[in-house]
Amino acid sequence: MISIVSNPSRSEWPTLMQRAITDMKAVDTVVADIVAEVRRDGDAALRRYAERFDGCRLDDLRVSTAEIDEATALVSADLRDAIAMAADNICRFHSAQQMKPLTVEVMPGVVCSQRAVAIDRVGLYIPGGNSPLFSTVLMLAIPARIAGCRRIVLCTPADRQGRINPAILYAAKVAGVNEIYKSGGAQAIAAMAYGTDTVPRVDKIFGPGNRFVMEAKKLVSSDHTAIDMPAGPSEVMIVADDSADIDFIATDFLSQAEHGPDSQSMLLTTSPQLAAKLPDAIERYLQQLPRREMMERSLSHSRVIVFADIEALWDFANEYAPEHLIINCADAETMTSRVRNAGSVFIGPYSPESAGDYASGTNHTLPTSAFAHSYSGVNLDSFIKKITFQHLTADGLSSLGRTVQVMAENESLMAHRLAVTVRMEKSLNDPTKQS
Amino acid sequence: MISIVSNPSRSEWPTLMQRAITDMKAVDTVVADIVAEVRRDGDAALRRYAERFDGCRLDDLRVSTAEIDEATALVSADLRDAIAMAADNICRFHSAQQMKPLTVEVMPGVVCSQRAVAIDRVGLYIPGGNSPLFSTVLMLAIPARIAGCRRIVLCTPADRQGRINPAILYAAKVAGVNEIYKSGGAQAIAAMAYGTDTVPRVDKIFGPGNRFVMEAKKLVSSDHTAIDMPAGPSEVMIVADDSADIDFIATDFLSQAEHGPDSQSMLLTTSPQLAAKLPDAIERYLQQLPRREMMERSLSHSRVIVFADIEALWDFANEYAPEHLIINCADAETMTSRVRNAGSVFIGPYSPESAGDYASGTNHTLPTSAFAHSYSGVNLDSFIKKITFQHLTADGLSSLGRTVQVMAENESLMAHRLAVTVRMEKSLNDPTKQS
Repeated sequence: MISIVSNPSRSEWPTLMQRAITDMKAVDTVVADIVAEVRRDGDAALRRYAERFDGCRLDDLRVSTAEIDEATALVSADLRDAIAMAADNICRFHSAQQMKPLTVEVMPGVVCSQRAVAIDRVGLYIPGGNSPLFSTVLMLAIPARIAGCRRIVLCTPADRQGRINPAILYAAKVAGVNEIYKSGGAQAIAAMAYGTDTVPRVDKIFGPGNRFVMEAKKLVSSDHTAIDMPAGPSEVMIVADDSADIDFIATDFLSQAEHGPDSQSMLLTTSPQLAAKLPDAIERYLQQLPRREMMERSLSHSRVIVFADIEALWDFANEYAPEHLIINCADAETMTSRVRNAGSVFIGPYSPESAGDYASGTNHTLPTSAFAHSYSGVNLDSFIKKITFQHLTADGLSSLGRTVQVMAENESLMAHRLAVTVRMEKSLNDPTKQS
Repeated sequence: MISIVSNPSRSEWPTLMQRAITDMKAVDTVVADIVAEVRRDGDAALRRYAERFDGCRLDDLRVSTAEIDEATALVSADLRDAIAMAADNICRFHSAQQMKPLTVEVMPGVVCSQRAVAIDRVGLYIPGGNSPLFSTVLMLAIPARIAGCRRIVLCTPADRQGRINPAILYAAKVAGVNEIYKSGGAQAIAAMAYGTDTVPRVDKIFGPGNRFVMEAKKLVSSDHTAIDMPAGPSEVMIVADDSADIDFIATDFLSQAEHGPDSQSMLLTTSPQLAAKLPDAIERYLQQLPRREMMERSLSHSRVIVFADIEALWDFANEYAPEHLIINCADAETMTSRVRNAGSVFIGPYSPESAGDYASGTNHTLPTSAFAHSYSGVNLDSFIKKITFQHLTADGLSSLGRTVQVMAENESLMAHRLAVTVRMEKSLNDPTKQS
């Protein structure tokens, strides 16, 4: 089921790095129509789509305070405790990412600074379905709140009875989100991008979704609404040596496989012995788990690659740029210095991906499809802008002015030069030299 | 020429916030063809386009070391000095933006960290034409070098003689860039996104350009190459009171106007007296400057808006989200706390936009078209990823494990649960409890 490749030549690498090809056929025109209809008809369009796609008639698109409050009692004490611990860790790690304002006097009288300012309005999309992604609510809403976003809007589809899963509402409440709307799919993305009477327009949209949601996010991002990052199927890469317990690797493979049929798991090792043990271990655990068919589809494009030397292994790992990277080696901590491209890294035998997916404190919204070459996962920066400021005194401008004049002149921008010249001349006659 | 609007009602604001409409007609198919041709024919396509669009036959696409060295003598001593001072300030301010690695033990045995890792390969695009944008070379290459990018690639079109403007080569040399290729337009963007025999593929592309370049950046960004930010015409907003010298405002308006016919300048003030003085002052300086016709086109969609109260003024300014914001008021420094959306802010009478465009140390690649609601200007972060790490000890996992199990179960992800269960059970029997 899982192919084991030994010592591939570099010319074979691109093929081995290929992700599963997602079926992205022809949703763009459907999505463009949905977005156009929501822009035109607003709330009425959202109600029509809720009836058509979610099978529910909605009077109020907004979740009421009563509904949010009632959710608490519908969530088990176990889950409430778990959410509390996860929220606490996520809060602690993301709070530590806050940037202090930076001020540098680059030369006398020329002060540059950089300050973090929260994005005013953010929109979080949480898919519906049988597996309510309350963990994603925590991962997106907690940093938004820490950043200081003024409005945190959450859209998620209702079920046939017009209700939202209580775990989602509870997680939203814990994270401090109270603007929740019953809308899903491309129509929810359109509502947050353009606003309706009920749903406010936001500046940036976050969150996972099916290909309609992804296409809608892409579409609105080319207009004026920012999005978190490009989306693709989830993936894990495990770098392991003979010190690794094969059962840990097998269950990590299966964790990834249950994300969906397009998910990909990769084991890189220099140990042929370890590689040879994996298929049996996976088979053994596969028998204990539900969703076997889907997992087998995912495993069919997962790979085990044995490298002759560790340098080649790391070159491959960094070129692949995995969303999740598990380093299950004796010297795992040391090896982290080799990581150049990855979303989030799990160090040592007792750091399964599951820990970061839920509760260690790191974010689980991460770059896939090799976007880790250039993108970070969601972090506190995702919810802020870093605005720069400069304050020149009259003396500062007189020190810097000649430089600006010469450069402007050489770029043929004579008004740029003039704006400096006028100021320098007047400052000579300005006894107060106000600044 | 410039319209003065007094006390507009909030319903009029959206119209007043409109940017000039850029003619973006039908370049997408042209650009898609160019990109496809470069992917197919590589260097041969780049040579064909250089001949067709730039009028030059190129043997070597890469600028030689000799060409770079010769450029120094062709740049005036004045300009070399100016570039040195600007580079020094840019270097100082961007170096200060370096992030220290962050490590947080969120609970005993659960350590999360975040480290900045440079993007391996970045591509900088510098347009050709009569105004060589050597300042943009400094703004992009200096932070790339500080970030530690391994390959910094620069593409810019050659002139009819197959040469690059010496100021561009000299600025590149000062900034530490030595991989320079003679290619412009959409074809240069395609070359950097997909690679040719000569031009290396990069992970992220930065830089300004005409609408073919913008469209090409947008196109490749939906594949696998990141880009700096969406592009639009440049703009400045000036907030001023009666303390402001009208000549400073007039020359700031004209500086913006000479960026191009689509540029926009806005003056917001609570002083009708100040507003009334602006048109004459602009006319006076306009007569001293070249490019009058283009500047008049730009000024035709520039605006002066008088507000009855300062609160409304700041609401408008933040909703407009200017690329450049000049605060030319008596209490300018205090007012900066009101800034929520802007690219870069210029504080006080002696801080013209020209200073930041060239030499104060802040970056001049900034979000336009209201993207300052959600985007930062280029800064050191633009050249790095922030990768997260987590290291759980066996004890750490035993503290956190139950939380992960409960959450995974409630999201119906049973393999995620199993990956934790297997580890927790084995750790009980692992006397070394390796971590």
